[in-house]
Amino acid sequence: MTIYGDKRSGNCFKIQLICALLQIEHHYIDIDLLKGDTKSPEFLNKAPVGKIPIIELEDGRVLSESNAIINFLARGSALYPDDSFVQAKIQQWQFFEQYSHEPYIAVARFIQHYLGLPEDRRKQYERKHPPGYKALDIMDKQLAKTNYLVGDECSTADIALYAYTHVAHEGGFDLTRFSHIKRWLKQIEDLPGYVAMNY
Amino acid sequence: MTIYGDKRSGNCFKIQLICALLQIEHHYIDIDLLKGDTKSPEFLNKAPVGKIPIIELEDGRVLSESNAIINFLARGSALYPDDSFVQAKIQQWQFFEQYSHEPYIAVARFIQHYLGLPEDRRKQYERKHPPGYKALDIMDKQLAKTNYLVGDECSTADIALYAYTHVAHEGGFDLTRFSHIKRWLKQIEDLPGYVAMNY
Repeated sequence: MTIYGDKRSGNCFKIQLICALLQIEHHYIDIDLLKGDTKSPEFLNKAPVGKIPIIELEDGRVLSESNAIINFLARGSALYPDDSFVQAKIQQWQFFEQYSHEPYIAVARFIQHYLGLPEDRRKQYERKHPPGYKALDIMDKQLAKTNYLVGDECSTADIALYAYTHVAHEGGFDLTRFSHIKRWLKQIEDLPGYVAMNY
Repeated sequence: MTIYGDKRSGNCFKIQLICALLQIEHHYIDIDLLKGDTKSPEFLNKAPVGKIPIIELEDGRVLSESNAIINFLARGSALYPDDSFVQAKIQQWQFFEQYSHEPYIAVARFIQHYLGLPEDRRKQYERKHPPGYKALDIMDKQLAKTNYLVGDECSTADIALYAYTHVAHEGGFDLTRFSHIKRWLKQIEDLPGYVAMNY
């Protein structure tokens, strides 16, 4: 399997973390998001939506969308159990991540950390904070009730939400008031095989 | 099972269409999105993210996020086959729908069709069109190659994308140039058990 990713992207980090936790062998091809590598005809041929990460299997089949990829890679493991309601709850949190979390927390981080918070993006950046905090609040309330997002065990829902939550401070988010999220971040970082985001 | 939804919402229509195609019995509770019913303490207790649709099972368990719900309801049927790569491709298209399609096509429709395109929303509305057309173009290219989005058979990926695509004109999108999408819309409307969106 070959992974195409950019190490600065939280969406790509999800794949790297799953591969580390489950000891999945792979090749890695670096795609420079800021240089526009995802807009090249060669890349668009593999992934028409022009987004990383993607994976390419030995037989040439390609899969995109980070959360679809981690669920596929974790099939048959405790991180994506066979139970159909558990799988549905995992997907519920992952759709929440892509719709109600990533567009605020990841984009605020991109504007601050990679673009250096230019003046013409400041209004957009500030508008990201209230809905981003709302997403963190929803996570914190769930993590007050359960050890991980979908019950007592770690799943690909946690990997999906961990990716941008643990670097939310790089987008100006203050995590100090979210005590359950802080406990949960530490739990994930203590998992056997855990690797840090390398950027 | 009880469905909480608003019949004007494409996300809610996905659930109604799955229930019709698979003949799933259910209760239906109407939630008025425009009146703020999703912000009531009672609703937020069931669904902290404050969004419809949700389903509540007989045992009280609740599931939110439309695409997670339709995959759960279609488990064991031809619309969500057991093959893990097929499930991953279905999820890929559904994450694409929530991140790269719905925020443009559904929101443009909401502004035009439900808010009556007020002047102070016109700029936002116009900004939705280029990325919305990009999403339609990606779908059309896939549907030039395969009968449905994930191969020759209809799946919950198609139900997810059908919901807002078939009413895209209510958001100002012109579908006439997307011949493969038009063929695909007709295929879905010809499925046994199909029901139209009732709004």
